[in-house]
Amino acid sequence: MKFKLILSLLLLSSYFVALSQEKQPEKSSKHNITATEKGLIKISILYPYAEGKNFNMEYYAAKHMPMVAGFLGSNLVKYTIEKGLSSGIPDQPLPFMAIGSFYVKSLSEYQAAIAPNRDAIRADFTNYTNVTPVIFVSEVVQ
Amino acid sequence: MKFKLILSLLLLSSYFVALSQEKQPEKSSKHNITATEKGLIKISILYPYAEGKNFNMEYYAAKHMPMVAGFLGSNLVKYTIEKGLSSGIPDQPLPFMAIGSFYVKSLSEYQAAIAPNRDAIRADFTNYTNVTPVIFVSEVVQ
Repeated sequence: MKFKLILSLLLLSSYFVALSQEKQPEKSSKHNITATEKGLIKISILYPYAEGKNFNMEYYAAKHMPMVAGFLGSNLVKYTIEKGLSSGIPDQPLPFMAIGSFYVKSLSEYQAAIAPNRDAIRADFTNYTNVTPVIFVSEVVQ
Repeated sequence: MKFKLILSLLLLSSYFVALSQEKQPEKSSKHNITATEKGLIKISILYPYAEGKNFNMEYYAAKHMPMVAGFLGSNLVKYTIEKGLSSGIPDQPLPFMAIGSFYVKSLSEYQAAIAPNRDAIRADFTNYTNVTPVIFVSEVVQ
């Protein structure tokens, strides 16, 4: 009787081991992306490059983006920061110095969260750039 | 003796169950992003909006992007497609109709893979758009 019980528990444990292992994401590379942003709304803030324009990436990453992210609450899934390197077309100028992007579940919730804080966000611009950003709203379709 | 062996196996199984469960990513939301693109190179192809310009998203997603992705091999970590919805600034025109992005590990490997296929890629443009894209190379810093 005791033997049968232990055997049953053992089989049950093995089953859960198999189940757990199946759920684990594949780890084929350091940068393996296991989740998808598909269906999310993305708000990108693009800072065009031009002669005489500047952008302080340190301040942007340490202060500005966390401040705005803080206004968005649980609607925010993640945010990313890109540093402009070059144009992909030889002899063309760098299109953007930087791009910051917020991935959110709802655009209307994003707008409602930003509206009362717009002045604070704009006032902070001068702390890291002298360029007027382009703002682009998109849907991640793939 | 047999009993001790089974007990040992049972304990071992339980240990692996615990271990496996620990490795599982948290699933707090449908869109939970468990991995990071930090450190990757991103090549974005931006299709500016303008009067009289068009963009066939269906062809782009089903044919063009998979073709280019196929040239990139294991250097490609993932690619994304965004559909332009609006400007984030009221009364401003839509900045882009669409953006396609390739996340790669190495820019030089990307360039070496694209160079011999550039003509095929450009020839395919006319199948889905009549606008000249902006190409932007960036580093994902966060």
